[in-house]
Parts: sequence; structure tokens; C-alpha cells
Amino acid sequence: MKFVAARSEILTRLESVSGAVAPKSVKPILSGIYFSMKDDSTVKLQATDLETAITTELRPKHIDGRCDFVIDARLVLEIVRNLPEGEVVFETEDTNVIIREGSARFTLPTMDPEEFPIVEPTSGGLEFTVSVSSIELMIDRVIFCAARDEFMRNLNSVYWEFEDGYLRLVAADGFRMALSEERIDLSIDDHFLLTLKSMKDLQNSLKAAMSDLLKVTYDGSRVQFLFDGTEIVTKVVDAEFPDYKKVLPKSFKARLVLSTEVFSDAVRRASIAARLGSDSVKFEIDDEQFKIVARSPDHGESIEILDANKEGDNIVIAFNPRFLSESAKKIDSDTVELNFVDSNSPLQMNPVDVQGYTYVIMPIRLI
Amino acid sequence: MKFVAARSEILTRLESVSGAVAPKSVKPILSGIYFSMKDDSTVKLQATDLETAITTELRPKHIDGRCDFVIDARLVLEIVRNLPEGEVVFETEDTNVIIREGSARFTLPTMDPEEFPIVEPTSGGLEFTVSVSSIELMIDRVIFCAARDEFMRNLNSVYWEFEDGYLRLVAADGFRMALSEERIDLSIDDHFLLTLKSMKDLQNSLKAAMSDLLKVTYDGSRVQFLFDGTEIVTKVVDAEFPDYKKVLPKSFKARLVLSTEVFSDAVRRASIAARLGSDSVKFEIDDEQFKIVARSPDHGESIEILDANKEGDNIVIAFNPRFLSESAKKIDSDTVELNFVDSNSPLQMNPVDVQGYTYVIMPIRLI
Repeated sequence: MKFVAARSEILTRLESVSGAVAPKSVKPILSGIYFSMKDDSTVKLQATDLETAITTELRPKHIDGRCDFVIDARLVLEIVRNLPEGEVVFETEDTNVIIREGSARFTLPTMDPEEFPIVEPTSGGLEFTVSVSSIELMIDRVIFCAARDEFMRNLNSVYWEFEDGYLRLVAADGFRMALSEERIDLSIDDHFLLTLKSMKDLQNSLKAAMSDLLKVTYDGSRVQFLFDGTEIVTKVVDAEFPDYKKVLPKSFKARLVLSTEVFSDAVRRASIAARLGSDSVKFEIDDEQFKIVARSPDHGESIEILDANKEGDNIVIAFNPRFLSESAKKIDSDTVELNFVDSNSPLQMNPVDVQGYTYVIMPIRLI
Repeated sequence: MKFVAARSEILTRLESVSGAVAPKSVKPILSGIYFSMKDDSTVKLQATDLETAITTELRPKHIDGRCDFVIDARLVLEIVRNLPEGEVVFETEDTNVIIREGSARFTLPTMDPEEFPIVEPTSGGLEFTVSVSSIELMIDRVIFCAARDEFMRNLNSVYWEFEDGYLRLVAADGFRMALSEERIDLSIDDHFLLTLKSMKDLQNSLKAAMSDLLKVTYDGSRVQFLFDGTEIVTKVVDAEFPDYKKVLPKSFKARLVLSTEVFSDAVRRASIAARLGSDSVKFEIDDEQFKIVARSPDHGESIEILDANKEGDNIVIAFNPRFLSESAKKIDSDTVELNFVDSNSPLQMNPVDVQGYTYVIMPIRLI
């Protein structure tokens, strides 16, 4: 077997599947990429960690014979990354694959393709299409709020909700929540939960998307994402996402509108003193001013007074500055809106005049 | 006391001295920057870890009273870095320093300036001036070859040699050596040894140099570097640098001339296979070709054949690929020269048609 393809083509395909490659320690075969034939002119690349499977298609310029081998993913990716731009030859020789370009030649041992687990595509169930760029934006707006801890299975994930013609992504870690929504052409109401890891794989693979069309199908236990020639199949998380609507405040008693940049810069500076002390910044909002205060017993304090347009009650409330600045970073409008209920209720932060996403941050209790 | 200066001015000065700040754990006062007066219009900033002391001058736009305080270096640096460009006010209030800009206000506790160790400047001895840019280049060309291990005191350092009107910097770690030289206006022959840490401090501080003139004085136990208003005083290492001239091969039996880029790229690729195996790459040089081979027992092999202009004997020799590529990266001419004696003697690598620096790399013994 021998095929010849442009280095950039191969690299893009290898990068698309590499997200699903399992770490070496799990099971040797899962650290590989399985190269097989889709048809006479198309090579299929597959990787899986048994949770998520990614399949993508490579159309070589030239192909002889049928390929059917598994090689180490990390190694082939590093080799192709380090080759100069040009035509790369993959050729099997006994139990090895030779990768050649110009006068450079790499010999890699192969693994047995029989051992490679085949993940069947989903069939039937919920089905809809959505724009790749809007899904990318929605993921980016919520993913950082998901819990990092893999043992918190329901929070180490992103909740997909279909309701009244809206697709809604929600992520939460118990201290804060992010919600992003978009109208879609779907009349069924449903929902599923995907791991943070599989969301990152999707995010990573979508970078290589050429067209803006993503097809999503959900068969009750697995979700399939399909774009260009790439197919991602991932298991849903069998756990209950908390009722996020309970956390969304129904009404507010105070509202601040101010420059997103001024707000983020001030929070970033206040966090210098906060980090050395209680790791909290206090908002003191009255009719005259919006004051951000952070104190640390040994390292002094910082006080910043900001221009803000205020409506409603005065309030004193404290937050983890990292949660504020991470959310503020995602607000891409010039002005941000901060909505408060009282000192013990969550802050709702959202862009002004832009629909579709909002952040909810729990306060730190003041003593 | 109160002074007002542009944020960028203060930041540059803080960054200049911060290299010499000791880690917090050593002694609290050494984690601070000492602000004092040089004259009525100049504030002196000092930092030291007792090995190296850096002093620099700040000329505020406006100054009231005499300043004399020590504040935490890391904290003040982070605060000033995060302020927007503008005029920053430093003001003392009881035992605190207030840093203000616009509506942002930081209060930092001060440390007792009496505790701050004063490092006297050097006087007399060897004295010469050199261009900042050429010293920067010389340091960059050798510093990566110094040993990282602080217990190898004579190799965890850079050797400064003055001989026959040349300044020579030499660094070695037992496996490789870098030498960089430049004509200077000095008739005395002498030498001293400076720690890798102090060389990095010097390198870091020189980035802020405005003029291209560096004054160096050496009084037998300490070296002083002076540029613009910045003064670095550092102790010499009391240890013997090995006789590097013994390592420089006197004559060669084979010589290769080839493209620096082609050579580095090939070495980088070969190191992928080498890293997984013996961590060595083998050069097989005969009349026909220059072949770079790397093998790993489980991860295959790489072979690359390069165009090279060869003179002299055939040779088979092996190296640590990292040493080859790190040195090749510093060769800034289009073509590189590789000079060999035999399989067990060091390779001498240098740019073609450019004087002034050379790398010597010990081979790995072939079994």
C-alpha cells in the first residue's frame, strides 16, 4: 500500500482526530490512529478513547492498494508537523509504515487493526443542523464555567437543552454558571449532557471545518456531530444536570451598566491584593459611586472607584475576582450589565444590547 | 513623600532591578525594592540577593520630600504592570506606600530600609567599555551551554577571558562548550567567572538599555556593569574554570559545509525517533552522502540524507540531538561548518565566513 498527499492535508486530518486519542497508559491500541479505506480514493482516519470517536477523511493525490494499519498518534503527528511543506508518502513495508518526504524517511511499527474498536455511527432520533461558527461561539461562551473535577460527573460537562425552538448550552461548577442560547429549526424539546472532555474534542475538531454546516444527531445514548468529512460520536453522560433555571434570578433590585473594559481592568487589578488575602473583592455600590475593594492582612489593600450608571438599591456584595474576570472576558460588547438582588443572591452579568448569553456568579458571604 | 512618574518609566525601572530580587523564602527584606534618593530629582531603586545587586535611577516628573522605603518587589511590579498608561503617584502615609492612578488606589505596607544591605560599588582594577548590543549577542551565543546544576559551581557560570585585545566568553557543561569572542580596547590579560544567574540578570537588565555603551570594572572580587543610570554589581565565582583550550581540536580530518536551515530541520526531525530510543543521532558521512540516522527499539527509525559539501575522511559519529540543534539555532549565517577529527573526538560547529563564535560538542560513544 502506498499513498501520497500534501503535508498540510495530512496534518489537518491528523489534528482533527487527535483529540480523541487516549493517553498511552489506557490501552496501547487506543493511543493509535487507525488508517483504513472508505472507498478507492478515500482514506479514513479514526481515533477513540471509547468515550468519544472521531473519524475523518483524507483524499490522497495518489493511492495504490488498500490501507489497513494503526500507528502511534503522537509520533505520526509530531513527524508530519516537523516535515517541510510538500508531498508526503505513506507506504507499508512488512509490519512497518514508512513515511517519506524528500530525503527524510521514517519507519514506524504498526499495531494490529483487528484490535481497534469500531464505533458505530448513531442512527435516528433527534436530528438538526446548526452553523459551525455559532456552535463554536456558544461553546467558547460556556465551557470555562464547567467544573474541572472529573468526579463531579454532572458538572464536569455541558448541558444541551432544546426548548421552544432554542438550543441552549449551560455549564456550571457550583459557584457560577454560564448560559448561551441560539434559535434553531427544531420543534422537539429534549436535552442531553456531554463531558467537558468531549466538548473540547468537538471544539478542537471544528477548527478544521471548511464549511459552516454542522449536523447533529442524538439517538438517546450517543450524539454524533458531522461536518465536512469529519464525524464525532460521543456518549452522553448518564447523570442529572441541576435545574439551572432555579438559579436564574427572577427579578433584580439593583442594576449597573458600565464599560466592559473598565470593569475587567479594575477587577484584574483588585485581584492582585485579593489573591494575597481572602481571595475576594467587595463591591460597595451606593448612589454616589461603585467602589471595588480588596484587602489582604499583610499586603495592603486596593480601592478602585468606577464610573457606572446605577439604577435601584444600594448594595454591598463580595465575589471571587477570578469568576468575575473570566466571565467579563467573554462579554464582547462595549458595555456590561451587572444585575443584583441582594448581598446573598447571585449576580447576573450579561452584555448590554446583545441577546444570547449570560453569566451567574454566586457571592461570597460577608461576615 | 510623594513622587509622580509615567507608568512606563516606573515599569522599566522596576523590571531592570527585579532580576536581582531574592525569592521570598531567603530573607524578607531581600524580596523588596529599596527606594531612596540619589539627589533632589532622582529616586534610586535597588534590589539584591547578596550575590548580585542592581541599582537604577528614576527621574520622576515631580517629587516632594525624600523617599526612603522598601516595598515588596513582586507586588509593586504586578500592580504597575496592570495599571493603564498614565501618571502614577507614589506617596507615603504612616508606614504604608499608596500607589495611585486615576481612581485606582493601592496601599502597600513598607519594610524597614535600615535592614536593607547596601552593596558598595567596585573601585579600580580592570576597566573597559564595550557595546551593549555586542555583549548581548555574545551572552546569547554562549549562555545556553552553561551547566544548569548549581552545585557544579565552575560550570554553572560563564568564563570571561581578556587576552591579546580580545574579550572571550566561554560556557561549558561537560558535554559541550560555546565560545564567543570580540576585539576590545584593552591591553591587560585577565579573567573572571560569573554565575549563570548573574549573567541572566545582566541579560535581562540590558534589555532596558537606551545607549549602546556598557562600562565594565573588575576589582578582583566583584564586577560592576554600568549603563545609562543602571549599575549591576556581582561577585565573581571563587572556582576554577576548566582549561577550555584543551578541548578545542587543533586540526581536523573531515569538514562538511551545508545549509544551516537544512541541517537544523533534519536534526529536529531525527530527534523525534532519537528521543524515544537511545537519545542519540548517528552521522554516517562518506564520499557519497551525509546520512543522519536515529533508531528507537519500539518506535521505528528515521533516516535523512542531506546535501553537503565534504572534504577529508569518511566518518561515523553519534551525538545528543538536542546539543546539535541548540547550537545550530545560534548559527545566524546561511551555511554552517562541521569539523570532525574522529568518532571519539568532539565536533566543532561554527558559522561559515563569520568570525567570533564556535560550538564544541562531545560525541556519544558508539558501541
